[in-house]
Order: sequence, then structure tokens, then C-alpha cells
Amino acid sequence: MSPATRQFTAKGAATRQRIVEGAAEEIRERGVAVTTLDDIRARTGTSKSQLFHYFPGGKDDLLLEVAEYEADQVIAAQQPQLGGLTSWAAWRRWRDTVVEHYTARGQHCPLNVLISQLGRATPGAQKVVSGMLKRWQDEIAAGIRHLQAAGEVAADADPERTAAALLAGIQGGVVVMLSTGRIDHLEAALDVGIENLRASGNR
Amino acid sequence: MSPATRQFTAKGAATRQRIVEGAAEEIRERGVAVTTLDDIRARTGTSKSQLFHYFPGGKDDLLLEVAEYEADQVIAAQQPQLGGLTSWAAWRRWRDTVVEHYTARGQHCPLNVLISQLGRATPGAQKVVSGMLKRWQDEIAAGIRHLQAAGEVAADADPERTAAALLAGIQGGVVVMLSTGRIDHLEAALDVGIENLRASGNR
Repeated sequence: MSPATRQFTAKGAATRQRIVEGAAEEIRERGVAVTTLDDIRARTGTSKSQLFHYFPGGKDDLLLEVAEYEADQVIAAQQPQLGGLTSWAAWRRWRDTVVEHYTARGQHCPLNVLISQLGRATPGAQKVVSGMLKRWQDEIAAGIRHLQAAGEVAADADPERTAAALLAGIQGGVVVMLSTGRIDHLEAALDVGIENLRASGNR
Repeated sequence: MSPATRQFTAKGAATRQRIVEGAAEEIRERGVAVTTLDDIRARTGTSKSQLFHYFPGGKDDLLLEVAEYEADQVIAAQQPQLGGLTSWAAWRRWRDTVVEHYTARGQHCPLNVLISQLGRATPGAQKVVSGMLKRWQDEIAAGIRHLQAAGEVAADADPERTAAALLAGIQGGVVVMLSTGRIDHLEAALDVGIENLRASGNR
């Protein structure tokens, strides 16, 4: 829940949330560049005065809320697996969760909306993308540290940099899938990344 | 040069190429969603009849040519380094070339136009993106095979899958940079990927 939500009643906050989710769906389907406030009003059955009551700053205000909502969705779709990378079996389950999620969602995934569209629209949304990537990378790095403590990953591997590289591979795998329809780059990024982590423990 | 270019005189082909390059610049700066044929005509000083003389299929026709042009630019920006990954020093030079290119170009890089915008616009452009990624991956895989033959990379490493993972990391690193302004994910993807290749040769 964003700070701005606090000023509304429970019913008001629910309406506001409904508008954010409707806007997110519209943008996932049609792209941010062509989505207008009128489209969002039509989809969510909201009047102009309602929209500006809940989002006094207009479209920029709403887009920022959509970015925050989508950032939460990106992380939530990987839970609880992402938060518990404490064994190779757990890493495998997370890998499968990620591949299944993006195979099923394709173009209409929250990550696409965030990294390809909203993230470049405003400095505020860019900050939301940075925060989402940091949460994601922190979880991966925590998993690497856990396996280092268990002696399964080389002690001299840099958890942050290794997590950054794996995260980049996932972003790129998703982007390639969005441009070509093929999932194998995402699979290769995850599989090669995890295999190299395992191999480092055997050196 | 595309097959369609052959029907024009040398002067006609040059004019056509000038329109493609102008359109590419316009789209790099403003994005494909908001770029109109009128914008492209204004930028390139072209009349409506000229535009349709050179691109009878209209905008789709022109966008496909822009996609092919940008795909060539993505590969050309990495040459000659990408084509000669025959030693660790050569890999390092390629790595530096890639990082410098994307640091300098940022939002306005041909790769962004291709993978985030044109690649999703039409099936034809999607095919161009797939072809560009294949050329890129083939060059990386050739470099891995070269180092395998020299005993520098593990013989059991799969060159195609390893190249696909590294390529995904680069795409993701660029996408993260476009959303956050930070280059460190691209650097991590390249550095960790290359280090793992080297480590495999010492196992």
C-alpha cells in the first residue's frame, strides 16, 4: 500500500486499488504509449471526477501506482520459491516457477510492462523498477550466501555480482521471449547460471 | 541490402537508404509507438509520393527495413571484436567494446529499438530480431568452440547453450540499464559469464 492510499476510507482505498489493477491490465494488453485515461476510465467504469479524486496528479500519478503494483506482482509470482533458495532442489523449483510463469504470461507479464514501458516513462517509475530489481537480486544473493555457508558454493564467489549476472540473464531471457516467442534463452540463462554456481562448489 | 532495394537505381537506392536511416533515428529518439510517417517525412525531407514509391507497403514496409538496418547496426557495433573471440584477451576487448557502446548510446541504441519496440510490432520484424540474435549467438558460440579446441574451456560445455545464456545476460544488462540508468548488470553478466567459461577450463 502506498502512502497516498492512507487518506482514503476502506471503500475508497478499494476503489482506488480497482482502478490501479484495471489500468495495469489495460497497459499489459495494449502498452503504455497508447493507453489513455479515457481507456482506463472505460475499463474500470470510473468517472473523470472519481479518477482525479483518487489520482490528483492525473496519469503520471496513476502510472506510478501501476508501476508499484506491477513490481509487487513480479516478485509475488516467484514466491515462496524465491524467498527460500536454501538447497539445490529449492533453486530448481524456483527456476521452474520462473520458466512456467513467463511461458504462461508471455507479452502480458508485469515485468514487460515495468522494464520495457513504465520504467522509461518517468523518473518515479524508474525508481520503482530499481527497487523491484534490488528486492529480486537481494533474494538471489541471500540464496547464494546460504549455499556458501553450507559449502555448496565457492567461498570466493561474490554473491551480489553473481546474483546481478543471473538477474540480468533472466531479464534478457524474458526480453528475448517477448521479441521472438522462444523460451530457450530464459532457460539457458537460469540453467547455466545455476550449474556454474554448483560447479564453483566443486572446485 | 534487402531484396526490395534491387528495383531502384543507385540514386533511388541511396534515397531509400536515407529514409530508412532517418526513420531509424526518429524511432530511436521518440519510440515506434508515437512515430508517424509524417514525422519521418519531415525529418528526411521526403514527399508522400516519394515515401510510397520507395515503400509501397507503407509504414509496415518501412518499419521492416528499419528493423533490418538496426539489426545490422547491433552486430556492426561489436565488430571486429565479436568475430574474433579467439583468446581471453580478445574476449576482454569484446566485453569492453560492448560496455562502452551501451554506456555511450543508452536509450538511443539500436538494440533497444529492436528488442523493445520493433520486434513486437510485426511478425516480420520479429523474424529480423530472431535472425540478429542468431548471428550474435553464433559468433559467441564460435568463440567458445575456438577456446574449447585450444583446451581453454571445458570440452563438455555446450557452446550453443552457454552462448545463449551469455547473450541473455547481455540483453538483460542492456534492458536494466535502459530502465535504471545503471551499467553494472551488463558488466556483471559479461564478467561472470566469461569468468565461468575460464573456470571451466581449469576443472
